[in-house]
Amino acid sequence: METIKIGIITASDRASAGIYEDISGKAILETLQAYLLSTFEAVYRCIPDNQGDIENALVDLADQQGCCLIVTTGGTGPAKRDVTPEATEQVCEKMMPGFGELMRQVSLKYVPTAILSRQTAGIRGKSLILNLPGKPSSIRECLDAVFPAIPYCIDLLEGPYLECNEQVIKAFRPAQR
Amino acid sequence: METIKIGIITASDRASAGIYEDISGKAILETLQAYLLSTFEAVYRCIPDNQGDIENALVDLADQQGCCLIVTTGGTGPAKRDVTPEATEQVCEKMMPGFGELMRQVSLKYVPTAILSRQTAGIRGKSLILNLPGKPSSIRECLDAVFPAIPYCIDLLEGPYLECNEQVIKAFRPAQR
Amino acid sequence: METIKIGIITASDRASAGIYEDISGKAILETLQAYLLSTFEAVYRCIPDNQGDIENALVDLADQQGCCLIVTTGGTGPAKRDVTPEATEQVCEKMMPGFGELMRQVSLKYVPTAILSRQTAGIRGKSLILNLPGKPSSIRECLDAVFPAIPYCIDLLEGPYLECNEQVIKAFRPAQR
Repeated sequence: METIKIGIITASDRASAGIYEDISGKAILETLQAYLLSTFEAVYRCIPDNQGDIENALVDLADQQGCCLIVTTGGTGPAKRDVTPEATEQVCEKMMPGFGELMRQVSLKYVPTAILSRQTAGIRGKSLILNLPGKPSSIRECLDAVFPAIPYCIDLLEGPYLECNEQVIKAFRPAQR
Repeated sequence: METIKIGIITASDRASAGIYEDISGKAILETLQAYLLSTFEAVYRCIPDNQGDIENALVDLADQQGCCLIVTTGGTGPAKRDVTPEATEQVCEKMMPGFGELMRQVSLKYVPTAILSRQTAGIRGKSLILNLPGKPSSIRECLDAVFPAIPYCIDLLEGPYLECNEQVIKAFRPAQR
Repeated sequence: METIKIGIITASDRASAGIYEDISGKAILETLQAYLLSTFEAVYRCIPDNQGDIENALVDLADQQGCCLIVTTGGTGPAKRDVTPEATEQVCEKMMPGFGELMRQVSLKYVPTAILSRQTAGIRGKSLILNLPGKPSSIRECLDAVFPAIPYCIDLLEGPYLECNEQVIKAFRPAQR
């Protein structure tokens, strides 16, 4: 049986320089471990907020590593060094605007500054790329909102079958027509 | 009096090859007939999921046939052959993001996988182009949500006056300032 | 202390030709004066609905005048002369989709034709550019919805500190991590 690989990319000048610990990448890994009954290998990168570096990491995790899902954290705000959505759009063949819309809508219940988040999602080959916010608490809120659609999305991309722990998160797969 | 023309494009490899009946295109036609008191001519195309074919059909229905409204069904998901939004964006001068946002929001009440739909809308010349999902039940949900804005949009594009059956759907036209 | 500058651009063929008074630009100025305790200088332009003219005004107000916020009114609909979102996208390095999404969502509570508005926001250098609708009543609805996020956005762009009148509008600044 093929190994399921999931990529986690932390875009952060300070975390990649070792100035502080990457708690966001860790929060994503723990959330995915709680969600999934399927065994998966996490492929992890912690890089600076350079668009080229982020693009290279996305391409590597999609094309070389064969990750069916690549989740990023950081770099989605309006500041000069926030370029993760631009890197994502650059490497994707298809954009998935519904992910960003729903994540902003969910975050708006907590903070009015949710509209400053530019996070998006897209498809490169057989990989779904998803931008998450940088703050660990917002990461969980956003993943809880969009993850139910992710296993079926990966089915449509002809990727591996992801089985969820239904006590934690319910994946939805529509009946085939 | 000028004939009102409305285009319906079904993008489906299987329906266009005759493997199954195009029930989605039929569902759109029946919905429009229920909505509109104005007499209209439906211009129908059923084509494979090739971006070039979809673009050609959109251009033909907009520029040659003079359709004030062109509705597509199919090809809005994340799979490799889903390219209807890309074809739409390619031929439009203006994009109308509010349509896709509202349709996804409405579909989210039914299924969490609504965020996988990439449907959009845009303007080419005097034609409003609108992507609908492929599933007949979702088609009606989406049209019910966005159609109230369509007659006024066509007024703004200097197209024909569409009169709706108010028992079925209420068009909204703001008072002129 | 550095002067705070805020740009207001009215894109309107008729207002710029003097055919009617620019009540929209006035409504924006009055709203900002009600919101802000900080003293600011308004830099005002009233120009025709030409994409090039709008781009030039945006670039001037951002680069030469140094406005931390530039608000436009008019030209966001589907009609041929509505090109303000295109001009905005052309001059911005980053787009901020959350603003347009929230403004359409709020306007949808009042009119189903809110989805016809294509208004957006983006960043050029250290300036936040925000498209508002043309109608004065909608301007206030939209600003009330998005303004709470604007002072923090300008903080992130390293602009001046905007202090709001909390009796009128509450700005939100998350605790720094």
